[in-house]
This record gives sequence, structure tokens and C-alpha cells, in this order.
Amino acid sequence: MTTHWTLHPDRALPAEPSLRRLAREIYDSVRDLPIISMHGHVEAELLAANEPFPDPAELLVRPDHYLVRALVAAGVPHGALGVGRPGTPDVETDPREIWRTFCEHWRLFRGTPTRYWMEDVLAERFGVDAPPSAESADVLYDEIAARLATDAYRPLALLDTFGIEIIATTDAATSDLRHHRDLAERGWGERIVPTFRPDAVVHPGRPGFAAEVDALEEASGIAIGTYGDYLDALRQRREHFIANGARATDHGHLTADTTPLEPAEAERILLAGRRGEATQEESLAFAASMLLEMARMSSEDGLTMQLHPGVLRDHHPGTFAARGADVGFDIPVPVDYVNGLRPLLSELGTHPDLRLVLFTIDETTFSRELAPLAGVYPAVRLGAPWWFLDTPDAMRRYREAVTDTAGFANTTGFVDDTRAFFSIPARHDLARRVDAGYLARLVAEHRLGLDEALETAVDLVQTLPRAAYPPARALGRPVP
Amino acid sequence: MTTHWTLHPDRALPAEPSLRRLAREIYDSVRDLPIISMHGHVEAELLAANEPFPDPAELLVRPDHYLVRALVAAGVPHGALGVGRPGTPDVETDPREIWRTFCEHWRLFRGTPTRYWMEDVLAERFGVDAPPSAESADVLYDEIAARLATDAYRPLALLDTFGIEIIATTDAATSDLRHHRDLAERGWGERIVPTFRPDAVVHPGRPGFAAEVDALEEASGIAIGTYGDYLDALRQRREHFIANGARATDHGHLTADTTPLEPAEAERILLAGRRGEATQEESLAFAASMLLEMARMSSEDGLTMQLHPGVLRDHHPGTFAARGADVGFDIPVPVDYVNGLRPLLSELGTHPDLRLVLFTIDETTFSRELAPLAGVYPAVRLGAPWWFLDTPDAMRRYREAVTDTAGFANTTGFVDDTRAFFSIPARHDLARRVDAGYLARLVAEHRLGLDEALETAVDLVQTLPRAAYPPARALGRPVP
Amino acid sequence: MTTHWTLHPDRALPAEPSLRRLAREIYDSVRDLPIISMHGHVEAELLAANEPFPDPAELLVRPDHYLVRALVAAGVPHGALGVGRPGTPDVETDPREIWRTFCEHWRLFRGTPTRYWMEDVLAERFGVDAPPSAESADVLYDEIAARLATDAYRPLALLDTFGIEIIATTDAATSDLRHHRDLAERGWGERIVPTFRPDAVVHPGRPGFAAEVDALEEASGIAIGTYGDYLDALRQRREHFIANGARATDHGHLTADTTPLEPAEAERILLAGRRGEATQEESLAFAASMLLEMARMSSEDGLTMQLHPGVLRDHHPGTFAARGADVGFDIPVPVDYVNGLRPLLSELGTHPDLRLVLFTIDETTFSRELAPLAGVYPAVRLGAPWWFLDTPDAMRRYREAVTDTAGFANTTGFVDDTRAFFSIPARHDLARRVDAGYLARLVAEHRLGLDEALETAVDLVQTLPRAAYPPARALGRPVP
Repeated sequence: MTTHWTLHPDRALPAEPSLRRLAREIYDSVRDLPIISMHGHVEAELLAANEPFPDPAELLVRPDHYLVRALVAAGVPHGALGVGRPGTPDVETDPREIWRTFCEHWRLFRGTPTRYWMEDVLAERFGVDAPPSAESADVLYDEIAARLATDAYRPLALLDTFGIEIIATTDAATSDLRHHRDLAERGWGERIVPTFRPDAVVHPGRPGFAAEVDALEEASGIAIGTYGDYLDALRQRREHFIANGARATDHGHLTADTTPLEPAEAERILLAGRRGEATQEESLAFAASMLLEMARMSSEDGLTMQLHPGVLRDHHPGTFAARGADVGFDIPVPVDYVNGLRPLLSELGTHPDLRLVLFTIDETTFSRELAPLAGVYPAVRLGAPWWFLDTPDAMRRYREAVTDTAGFANTTGFVDDTRAFFSIPARHDLARRVDAGYLARLVAEHRLGLDEALETAVDLVQTLPRAAYPPARALGRPVP
Repeated sequence: MTTHWTLHPDRALPAEPSLRRLAREIYDSVRDLPIISMHGHVEAELLAANEPFPDPAELLVRPDHYLVRALVAAGVPHGALGVGRPGTPDVETDPREIWRTFCEHWRLFRGTPTRYWMEDVLAERFGVDAPPSAESADVLYDEIAARLATDAYRPLALLDTFGIEIIATTDAATSDLRHHRDLAERGWGERIVPTFRPDAVVHPGRPGFAAEVDALEEASGIAIGTYGDYLDALRQRREHFIANGARATDHGHLTADTTPLEPAEAERILLAGRRGEATQEESLAFAASMLLEMARMSSEDGLTMQLHPGVLRDHHPGTFAARGADVGFDIPVPVDYVNGLRPLLSELGTHPDLRLVLFTIDETTFSRELAPLAGVYPAVRLGAPWWFLDTPDAMRRYREAVTDTAGFANTTGFVDDTRAFFSIPARHDLARRVDAGYLARLVAEHRLGLDEALETAVDLVQTLPRAAYPPARALGRPVP
Repeated sequence: MTTHWTLHPDRALPAEPSLRRLAREIYDSVRDLPIISMHGHVEAELLAANEPFPDPAELLVRPDHYLVRALVAAGVPHGALGVGRPGTPDVETDPREIWRTFCEHWRLFRGTPTRYWMEDVLAERFGVDAPPSAESADVLYDEIAARLATDAYRPLALLDTFGIEIIATTDAATSDLRHHRDLAERGWGERIVPTFRPDAVVHPGRPGFAAEVDALEEASGIAIGTYGDYLDALRQRREHFIANGARATDHGHLTADTTPLEPAEAERILLAGRRGEATQEESLAFAASMLLEMARMSSEDGLTMQLHPGVLRDHHPGTFAARGADVGFDIPVPVDYVNGLRPLLSELGTHPDLRLVLFTIDETTFSRELAPLAGVYPAVRLGAPWWFLDTPDAMRRYREAVTDTAGFANTTGFVDDTRAFFSIPARHDLARRVDAGYLARLVAEHRLGLDEALETAVDLVQTLPRAAYPPARALGRPVP
């Protein structure tokens, strides 16, 4: 370990020399542009507290479900990674032990995006001397821990180090946004903004729904006796979010269904849910109808609407019971966007003040459904390849699948969607590399001029995300 | 604008030098072969009238739904492009204004096939001096308009200029084919042939069905009292088409279902349809059953049968009401070919005189369903990548997805399927380039000899389309 | 034909020179490693008899359904290839005529894997002088026939020639495994092992089910009066297989459903099936439930469980009636793995002693369902691309689609799954080439070190198949 570990500057660019030259030129032109991170899962509380990160395991291992799932698949128990519900007996509490377990299994990550991101984190963010291994684990742990103890590695300082121009958190509809207000008072209000996520208050069949609606009443100051009261309370919360800088909403649903319910039927299911009596079928119907209501509100208040359907959460009940959510057992399922979104798009798809950003983890929908929809409906934009798909090869396939039919202008640019704070620069950097490779091919095949490719690269990094996520009161969609 | 705008001769060929050398050699060998255009939407009336095209907007913008949809997605109203039902107040009528709107948005098309085709049209067909832009719009308009006023740019002259050996139009089952007869009398009967499209008379639930069946009675001279009469009337129309040179039928259905109805049930739905009382479900069941009837007739009269399922037409009802059909809001939906076609293929899939050409706009079916079906059923051939899929990248994916299982011999070669007359040479040229690139890779990876690749390139351009669409009386499938 | 026909040593490696250099180095490092063939359809009887293969047609044409289907699609009748049920009048019986028919149609196979494998067989295994053609057919026939008459071309000798370390046959649950015992007595027990395939005894709605259960009673020595007896009989058979060296079971089902039945309901359907009265729906429900039972047994006895769902067998009833099964008319259909497998995985997906290997012929499931499942469930491993997908391009797409989410460690390495004995080395060799090309790209894009790629190549050929198919009594999953 006498030489410093360095990554190749051309990593993830195409291998063929003429493509690589072009790709490098395009990539270099956007490499250092600031990061616009409009969809993520970093907690506002973490940023507001601005405490040093506790340790390498808590920072890099435990909360990263990509990483956790790969170790679990290899037979490493969740507990050995410190993952478990409170009170689970086998949960490792020594972060150094957790870190060692990760390092010993480094070879498992060959060929995966976790490997790619983690190399960037370790070599570029922490400047460690060697890749993880059983031998290097303790040295790496100490190197990282030492850095984390310095002020330069506190969360807010890292926003500057990482070049993050703006970062959006994801927040419950009932949140008081106290941490955002706190940050705003300290001058961070323009850079750290909340996102309105109402999933918990629109699924009447989920455990805890009644308490969520109680919290909604309290947060909004509106007593919810009727469906109209409920909608008013949600409008109040959206205004609260907008007042605190929010630019978008986010919706994680099982399907893309947006069929409206009659208000009386919606009210019946809402009240049944408060009594703990809504069925699973009623819950999905209500949630579908609420997607349309949320779109209506977005067309009025200007919050960009983000939809993430098609994930079957917690596929393994035993793991959910022992370890909780977000531990690697969420699995994609097919989604019917074309029929599901038809009610919403029939009513609002050409509304000049709605921006609906669609995500998927089913690649088959890119060319069959999402590019055709985004390529004609003014309100629809196609989000970045998400979750299982934000990888070198899947991001390339995304461009190849959607550009023909949706162009670049109907896409939003990259979002990182991550809980892993330190991986944010690596993820954006990788997206810039992959897009540069794609643009290089268009240039090399004489399908696009190099000047246009350079302009498009900037569009993908800056112009398009800014246009997709404007401040909520800036209504009207600018034609690019 | 002092230098002429030229396109790179190697556009859309692979970038890697050794592949490009091979691809260029293969492409050069077929570049100038005549165009066989067996599926398109150019109107026979346009060809028979042989009048100059009215203006650049009417020629290149208004009827091109690829182009229109991209502008609509960017917030340009249909009206600004001259698209609207008669009487819609906002429809722009100045073609120069429409052309300017298009030119100002040229950058929207980056990375799309519309960009690729339009470059070819403007630079190669019209020899304009510069790409479209706000600045160049008027000059381009005048250059194109001046060309269109010359005899060399009349439709029939262009068939020679474009090297079109034969072009098939698409015609209603009730058409009297007067324009084809007119053209035949002037010696164009071998080069301009009709295609029998009975969609309007096989969907009893559609508005206007009763009038369509009345028209069928009148056109055929057969009073339709029973289901048998109805089939006889269709047979009469097919004979009329064959007598006027038709080689194929074409069927645009929502699904690929071919389940037969009992004749009594079919008659009941037919008569209900004439009374305007057929349900949507009955309509689809009748249409499915009619696909099987059409296949039976094709096995008897030798018309190649083309099936285009899986498009949900007019997804946005408001746009359909204000702007009509074919304005960009048709969206693909999944299709089950394997079960849907089973009744038809069980009865006729090995019939020596049936040729059934299958199309899709759902790429997932290429390797899972269509290549396996085309790769074993003698009657089935796989059509070209269609509509959203006739793009540089999607055409490459098509070859990569189907050749393993269906080879080349069970495909039909390229069809352009376009309303945009001037894009026909660009589309065929692009297909030849993409196929050359695919064949070059097989050669470079030592999976095919160069001599074989050169032969295959000619097969794709000439041998296979001729074999798939022979004159209707030439029954029996030649083994290639 | 004066020069020997040689294949290019770099065939199926990437064309780009820097990738090819890397790929060749990686490929060279595994080219000569022994073949581990853990899933195939070579018959134990053929190996035990160790007679010379009868003739080129019987060896290379008649039983190869890839090859047969391509000729059938071109209009060659099954009979001309010697394919037909006993007594069918048109079945060609002269092997030389069958061979000629194949050779005359050689160009049909351009671009297909059959072409690739057959080139390898003819040039590398038989050393013939020229590719097949009408002219070369008789010479080739004689050359091959002469080789087949020598002792070096007897089946067991070829195991050595081909470098086959171990080969698994596929055997009915009721088999007495006499040929395996015979081989074991002659010292081949470690290299030729059976696979337990219970499909015929778990589908109560299939013709012949009653006789199959009778045979199960006889083979197991257990009278089957109850569902419990039936399970006991299956357990007995599994033990018999294990005692004869079996390492795995194999299950070919229409769907991936694993919903359990109540034992009383299972017994009712079982007994209905023995009376010939089980419906198709009951049959599928029983088979689904039995997948879960089989997984339970595998978690106890250590047989690796292989699942091959999603094939609609014998799509064309007329061909099935005249020609029998496995003659080219099996077609893929979509499969829902995520919901289908949920009962099984909820119960056993984290069981340390279960290994469930999943296969598909629907490529869309690789990134959407199978890689996410294999990438988290310890019991799940992702099988090789199968059947229509074991081709140069589809194998490359497989790695690109699954590695991001499942890595290499959750895959099993290649299985050939073939009836075509002579194609076994070609198929494994091709898989090694394609994987080398994929690994070369990772190295060239600086996503993996060359040393790691070399190690991974060996993992794919040796480490992973050995870990996925250990001797059945070696329970517990080693963490790689």
C-alpha cells in the first residue's frame, strides 16, 4: 500500500478509441458542472444537525440496500451488517466488525454499480490507499474514520466539496419541515429543499393509516370530517411545503392506475381507513384516485409531480418482520402505464402548468410505453433510469431505448435517488460519463454534430433538470 | 450559407474502423438497388393526380405525425402546425408560418429518426444549403417551394428519381380503386398497387360501421342479409383488388386474437353492428374471428396477409375530438401473439399458400414470441421494425433480437409504412445502412463470410420482399 | 476442397481490436478447462450402450429441434427430415437423403447459433473439408460416417475428447436408473449422473398421468393411497437418484406458480387425476403446489432444484399429432416470477440448504425479475441463458442485463441443455468466448481489473457450476 489508489480517468467511457476521444471531450465539458440533485433520500435532519458522520459502517454499509442485498444473497445475515429491528438479538453493533464483513466480500461486487460507486467514494472522496479486502479492512476503517472526524467531512461542508447546487430531500406530508426551516434560517434554504411525499396518507388499507390522518389533521390544522376536508388538508400541506422551498411531490405506488373515484366513494373508503376497515382493493383504488387529485393540485400549485410505480415492497415477509423495510427485498413488477395513466392524462396531459415525471424499473416500458407517452404529452417528462437501472449498462440502454421517440427534451436529466450521501457525486459523474458515451456514438455515426452534442450534454446536466423542477410558483412550461 | 449542406457518406454506419470498412462495402453493394415499398400510406389519388405538391408545410410538416408529436410534446399547439378538424378556430393556414414553427424547433429532434430522415430529405432531395433554424426558415421555404413547382418534383417523376420499383398504397375494402385503374391505363399498373384494408368493415362496434357495410354492399353488388353474404362480399372485393394488382391485405387490430366465432354468433354481431348495437366486446370478438376468415381467404386467393396489432389509438380523447386521428396520440400496448394467433396458426400455419406477415411495436415480443413463431411456421414471416421502431438503434436491436431464432429468411425486408412521401428513400437507405452494420459485425466476429453477407444484403433488399409479396395468383412458397 | 476447412480462432470475440486482445487473453485462460455439463438431454442409455452413432443424419439432423424448425419454416416437411410418429407414411428413412436436404439449405442458417455450432462440429469435431452444400453433401456424409465407425467416436471416448468432466442426464422420476448403475459399475459413476425430473407425475391433468403414478408406485415400492403416500414415494425416488449420484432436480412448468394447496385438496386432485378426471386448472394448481413440495424436499435432501417455466409446448396441434413432441413447435410465453415464486421464497428463500436455479426464455425478466430475485435471496441462483437464448448475442445481453443487479456470484455458469451430443463442446466454447468478450469490455472500460476478469472467467466455468450443483449430501451454501 505504498502507492495511492487512483481510478482511471476514462472509466465508464466507451473502449473504442475514436468514441473514447469524443466521449472524453464531451464528458470533460460537463464534468465539473454543479450537481442538481432533485430526487434523493438524504435526511434533512442529518443536514441540519451537521454532525460528523458516526463511522464507516453507519455511513457506507448499513443504509445502502444495494450493498446489503448483495451480501445477503451470498449468505451473510442481515444482522452481521447491523440491520435489524430494535431488539433483534443478532444485530452486530461493532461498526468495525460490520466494515470488515463488507471488505471481506469485496469480490462479490465485481461488475456491479455498487463496486463502481464505492471505488469512487473510497478513492476520490476518502483518498484511501487500496481497495477493500480482508487485509485492508482495518486500515481503510481508520483512514475513513479519521477523515470523518474532520470538519471538512461534515454534511454541509460536503455539499460544497461535492459541488451540489441544490439537493431535495423526501419528506412525509405531515412533516413540519422544522429542519428545513432551521437550515433556511442559516442561509441554506435555496440549496436544501423538501419534497412532498404523501404515500402514507393516501393508502387507507395500510397499517397506521388512521394515525397518519390524525397527524395530517394536526399538521394542517384542519379537522377531517369529509373527503373535502381531507383534500383541503393536503392542499394546506402542499402550501406549507411550497413556502419552505419544495419544488416537487413524489409518489411511490404499486401500479400506475389513476382511475378517479366518485367523491362519495372516496369519502367512504377514507373513513373506513380511519376505522382500520379498508380492504387492500379499496386502498389501491383510493390511492389511484388520489394520483389524479394530486395531478390536479400540481396543475394549480406548480409542484412537479413524480411517480415511481411498480415495486413490490418487502417480498420476503420473514425478513420484513425481523429487519424492517428497505433492506433489499423490494422487487420490480410489470406496470401498465398506458391504460393506468389514461384518466390522468386525458384530463391533464395537455395542461400547460402540469409537469409529470415518470419513472420505471421495468426496462421494457421505456420504448413501448414511456417514450411514446413522454414524446407527445406536453405534461409528461421521462425521469432518469431509476434504482436497479442507474447502472452503466442500463443507463446506456435507457438512452438507446427512449431517445428515438422522446428525444432529449422530454427527459429530466439524472436524479440520484440515494440514501448513500457519499455516492451522490459518483452517481452523477457516472451518468455524465454514460451520456457522454452515448452522445459520442451519435457524433461518430454522423447522427449529431459535436457542437450539438456538447450543448446536449449541458442540457442533460443543467437545463433539463432546472426546467423539470422549477420553483413551484414559476408556472408555465418553457419550450426548450 | 455559402457552402452546400452535405451529409456524411458513412452516416449510421458503425463507428469502429474495421466494422465501418466492412459495413461500407456491404452498404455500397445495395445502396442503389431499387426500392420495393410494399407497405405505405401514400395516397393513390396523389399519384394519379400527379399535381405539384402544394408547399413545404403541407408536404413535410402537417401530415408527419412523428414530427407533429415532438412539437406538441414541447408545448407547440396542434393548431400552430395546421392540424385540426375542419372549423377548429386556431388552425394556422399560412404554410410559411407553419414551416417557421418547425424550423425554430429543429433542436428538439436531436437524436431522433425524424432528424435523420429530414436531413436526408432537405440535403439530398432538395439540396438546400443549411439545416433548419429560425434564421434559415424562409430561405429553405423558398428553395423547397421553387423545386416543388418544377415537373421533376411531381409525384410520378419522383418515383423514378427515388428509384421506386413498386409502391403499395393502403385502401379501404370498399374503394373502387379508380385511381389505380386510371394509373394502370397510363402504364403505372405494375408499379403502383393497392392493398386491401378491411378494418372499417370488420369492427361492428365502431361508429360508422353501418354505413361501411352499406358501402360494402354497393361496392360488391352483393346484398348482405347473412354472414355468408358478408363473406361473399369481402371475397368479391378481394378479387377486385387482385384484378387491380393488389398483392396484400393489411389489418390494424388492437390485439392479435384470432379466436373464431360460430357463424350464427358472427351473424348476430354483424347484424347488431348494422343496427348500431354491437358492444365493444362483441366488436373485438368479431374482429378477431374475421382475422381467421381473412387468413382462410388469403390461403385461397394468395393475398399476403399483414397484421399490425397493439396500438391504442387516440389515447387523448380531447385531442381526438379537436384534431382527429393520426396526430401523434397513438400509443403501443402489449400484445399476446402466442395465444392470440394460435387458432389461426393451428388451422393455417403450415398451409403452403398462406403468407402471414407479423408486425409489432412492442420490442419485447421480438425474441420472446415473434422470432420463435416465424422461425418454425412456414406461413409466418416477420415484418420490418415498424413505426416507433424504424430507427437506427431499434432496427439494429431488431436484427440482434430475431436473427438467432428466425434467421434472415423468415423476415420480409424493410417496409417504410409512411405518409411522408419524400422520406421514403431516406428510410430505405437507413435500413440498408443499419443492416449493413449488423452484417459487418457478423463478418468481423467471424460468424458469417463477407461473400455471404453481401448476398444477404441483397436478399434483404430484393429477394425477401419479392418473396413475401408476390403477385397474388403466384401461390406456393418458394424455399429460398 | 483441397484446403482444410478451418474456423477463425477469434470467432465470436468482439471486433474492436483492444477489446479483442483482452477477450482473447481471457478466453485463452479458460478455453481448455474441462466441461461441467450439469443440465442436458443426452440419454444415459446411449452412453451405457457406447455403440457407434448410427449415421450423420441421426446424429446431427433428426434430433436437433433448432435445426429442424428452421427447415420446417422454409417449407421442408418434417417427414423429409425423418421426423414423424411411428407409421407416418412420409417419413424419409434414408439418412443420406436427410443429410442432403440439410446440406442444401445451409444458407438458411446464416446468422443463427445452429450455423455457429454446426461449423464447430463439422470443422473441429469431424475435420471435414468444406461447409455443407448440395455439392459437398455426399462427401461430408462419407467423411462423418467414416469417423463415426471408429472407436474414437464412440460416446464414452468422446467424453474424454470433449473434455467433459461431468455430464448430467435428465431422467423420469420413475426411472430405475439401470444405465447409470451399469455405468457406475464400469467406473463412470462420478462423471455421468442422473437428474430427477418429476414433471410427468405432478401434472394430474395430462394424458397418461394414471399410468405414471402406477409406475411411481412400482418404482418406489410404496402403495399410493393418500397424498402422504405420494409424497413418500417421491422422497423414495429422490433418495434412489441421490444414491445413484444425482445432484439436481429439474422442473418444466407452464408458469412459475408455487401456491400451496391444502393437503386434502391436493389429495382430491391427485386421486381425480388417477381416475383421469382432473381438469386443466386443477392440474396446474397441483403442479404449482408440488413445486413448493419439491423445494421443501430439496432443502432436506440437498438436490439442487432447477425450474424452467414459460414454454407453451406443441403450439401446433396438427404437427404434434403427426410428428410428436420436441419437433420445433414449442413457443415461449411470459412468466410472472415475482408473484409466482413468492410462496416458495417466503417459506424457503433464505433456507441455507436450498439452491433454486431459475431459467427463462423471456429476456424481459432478466433485469426486471430474475436478477433482482437472485441478487437478494440466498437460495436463488440465476441459470444460464436457455434454449432460444443460448446464442452469441443473447448470451451477451444476459450478462449486460443481470450483472448489475445479481453480480456474477449469483449465477451458475453455463449449461448446454442439449440433445445434440456433438454440439456440447461448441456450446460451452461459445459461452466462454461471449463471457470473455463481456469481461473484456468491463476491463477496457476500467470497471474491472484484468486480474479480476481472469479470475471471474474461471469462476464462470468452474467455481460457480460446482457450487450450484454440489453432491446432494454436501449441504450448506459456501459463501464465495
